[in-house]
Amino acid sequence: MKKLYVPAETVKRLSLYLRNLRYLAKEGVEIISSDKLAQDIYVSPAQVRKDLSYFGDFGIRGVGYSVKLLIKEIQSILGLNKEWPVALIGVGRLGSALLNYPGFKEFGFRISIAFDSDLKKIGRIYQGIKIEDFSEIERIIKKENIKIAIITVPASAAQEIADRLVRAGIEAILNFSPRYLNIPENINIKTVDIATELESLVYYLTRG
Amino acid sequence: MKKLYVPAETVKRLSLYLRNLRYLAKEGVEIISSDKLAQDIYVSPAQVRKDLSYFGDFGIRGVGYSVKLLIKEIQSILGLNKEWPVALIGVGRLGSALLNYPGFKEFGFRISIAFDSDLKKIGRIYQGIKIEDFSEIERIIKKENIKIAIITVPASAAQEIADRLVRAGIEAILNFSPRYLNIPENINIKTVDIATELESLVYYLTRG
Repeated sequence: MKKLYVPAETVKRLSLYLRNLRYLAKEGVEIISSDKLAQDIYVSPAQVRKDLSYFGDFGIRGVGYSVKLLIKEIQSILGLNKEWPVALIGVGRLGSALLNYPGFKEFGFRISIAFDSDLKKIGRIYQGIKIEDFSEIERIIKKENIKIAIITVPASAAQEIADRLVRAGIEAILNFSPRYLNIPENINIKTVDIATELESLVYYLTRG
Repeated sequence: MKKLYVPAETVKRLSLYLRNLRYLAKEGVEIISSDKLAQDIYVSPAQVRKDLSYFGDFGIRGVGYSVKLLIKEIQSILGLNKEWPVALIGVGRLGSALLNYPGFKEFGFRISIAFDSDLKKIGRIYQGIKIEDFSEIERIIKKENIKIAIITVPASAAQEIADRLVRAGIEAILNFSPRYLNIPENINIKTVDIATELESLVYYLTRG
């Protein structure tokens, strides 16, 4: 596969195409045109073709794409042809909701370990996942060779947790803590900040 | 206040400055330099000054910013100098977690009404909020003049819900449903798609 620069927006859309294709597969659809695939995601057919063209030529001219094959191709492009274990750091309200979130498994992720600092939670089993002490973060994550972590701790604890995750060998972080985190450049991070999103919405709402 | 184009990233950073300033206020800090404000958010001091300069001149030369005054100014810029009622559509696992989320109130939002289609939930009180039937969305949201909604329904129901929210007069939507939603241009929408964020992370993780 070619090693080239692919826009972040293309990567995001691949996820959306994949999700749509999985729905279609469930509904028994075998072939889909780029027009239809585009329409379901509200982009142009040309965009779909361009996004996919970064990785190869998957369509059948005049026919469209095989839903099954395109699912396999996109899963392989995204690295989702295996299940990824994920460490969850912080089992508060949001963390608990994520432990309950059925979407992870559907999309190739499995929270395999969770950590908290609350003595009432440590050692308990939530959704089949044992809650371990923060002090075990480095040891367990290294031992289990986990590469992805989700941070759902309060803002005040987030930087220290991020530093420890980096030391533990984590390479990708999904951060729900409302704080920018200072991490090495080779670590990938995405921050989902619900309050900031709402505040931006209100700004545009009040400004018309 | 000047009416001008302000970059979306500036609006997001205003939220982050605000959050940081609130922490500082709690800690009793009265004056902050743009250097320190910048450092806490991991941007440059020039960026802080530029972001704020869109809206006015809030600093005291050679001294810095008054924490209290800057909080007031940014709240006013963002439209957060009042509490915003929010409608929550879908009280599943994620919806329940959001009902529990203490951050909303802290940041000027209050989920004032929630809707679900599950007969076992309708009429019940969660976290002090009565769960209403989906069929009441238009009537109640119009009556209570709510402008902001959070969608946490499954993807299959999201577009229909969005259409109904638009008819009900909603002007800003925070969408947690893993789907692009087709809505009129004058409605502001932000989509938070946890699985897509994770999939993007894995893409970069596997591609180095």
